[in-house]
Amino acid sequence: MEDHIVRSFDGELGRLHDQVVRMGAMASHQFAEAIDALEQQDSTRAAAVGPGDDDIDALERAISEQAVRVLALRSPVAVDLRAVITALKMASTVERVGDYAASIARRSMVLNGLPPLPPVRPLLRMARLTQRLLDDALAAYATRDADKAHAVWACDKEIDDQYASLFRQLLTFMMEDPRTIAASSHLLFIAKHVERVGDLSTNIGEMAYYLVTGHPMNGQRPKGNFATGEE
Amino acid sequence: MEDHIVRSFDGELGRLHDQVVRMGAMASHQFAEAIDALEQQDSTRAAAVGPGDDDIDALERAISEQAVRVLALRSPVAVDLRAVITALKMASTVERVGDYAASIARRSMVLNGLPPLPPVRPLLRMARLTQRLLDDALAAYATRDADKAHAVWACDKEIDDQYASLFRQLLTFMMEDPRTIAASSHLLFIAKHVERVGDLSTNIGEMAYYLVTGHPMNGQRPKGNFATGEE
Repeated sequence: MEDHIVRSFDGELGRLHDQVVRMGAMASHQFAEAIDALEQQDSTRAAAVGPGDDDIDALERAISEQAVRVLALRSPVAVDLRAVITALKMASTVERVGDYAASIARRSMVLNGLPPLPPVRPLLRMARLTQRLLDDALAAYATRDADKAHAVWACDKEIDDQYASLFRQLLTFMMEDPRTIAASSHLLFIAKHVERVGDLSTNIGEMAYYLVTGHPMNGQRPKGNFATGEE
Repeated sequence: MEDHIVRSFDGELGRLHDQVVRMGAMASHQFAEAIDALEQQDSTRAAAVGPGDDDIDALERAISEQAVRVLALRSPVAVDLRAVITALKMASTVERVGDYAASIARRSMVLNGLPPLPPVRPLLRMARLTQRLLDDALAAYATRDADKAHAVWACDKEIDDQYASLFRQLLTFMMEDPRTIAASSHLLFIAKHVERVGDLSTNIGEMAYYLVTGHPMNGQRPKGNFATGEE
């Protein structure tokens, strides 16, 4: 009988884990779609990102309710308690990735109505790197891989550096051709959103590391110039 | 003996609540300092905001550890479980308010080195309104006042509208005088940070409401144009 209770608890924790993994895959897909829509100037594709974000928000609420239910009914301790708390924090972080993806998609639609467009190549490069970081962080959580989680942590500086360089480029571009100011402003925000997704990926890596090892990552994270502790 | 255990539990929950209230007061103070430093172009004052944010981050970690300890040792249910979960979520949200305050302060220091400065009056007006909303939301949590929490929820649209207007004004300003582009770009981000603090205040109001009533606020929140679900 006790064995049965334990197994059912494993099932609930497993379901919570699976829901978070699914939510992560949805947010990663949303981010990829938003960047593809930006690259291809495809407003139809961008318009599909918003409704997808509602699904992510709904899944976050479901995970939060499920976590509270497990806490109330099972009173987990030790590694199981850590798994529930991490699921709660993961859901909240992944939800913000989804919000940024939706915001990038919305701004890309505004951009499509605002020629002439400033160069987006360096932004796309930065976004692809961020996508890799996000996917690695989510994989580290899904497979409970502390080494992979730690690798994500060290990589965010490259994104911060690319962001700082892009910020300067966009300002120069605006000064040289003031007709691009509206479009460039939206690109500034998109670049910032991408940089924030990089930060959130690092946070996801930290959560995965804590989940597996039971203690926080040590040391100061390497950070770029403008991004220290930045929202 | 059981009475003693119950009272000690009340003490732990009370301490958790007090810590969140203190963290909220710190973040509110940081936000006020950042806005004052911006208004007075006072880089010394702005420079003091960053170290304060480290204290807020440390308090968030302490609250998170305390919450996990209460969950592990006391296995709270019903309203007590809700209080612990809300404390966790509050700490994470208030920490982001602190991050935005630090970012505003950092950017205000950059601004002080970048004349000529675009007009900041409408931004300051928006920031003062946001401060009131933030403080009302924190008070609703501190005093467990569902009516006050609900009032915050309805007020965020005004901030969103002011942000949308300010965004247009700043773009116009940049186009008319391209020498202000660098300064205006930082002001755009500051304005966005303030708008986000408004959103987070609404989230705090929602958490306070849920804590008191046990169910989420009903209905669709009134939102401004550009800010729907935006990060």
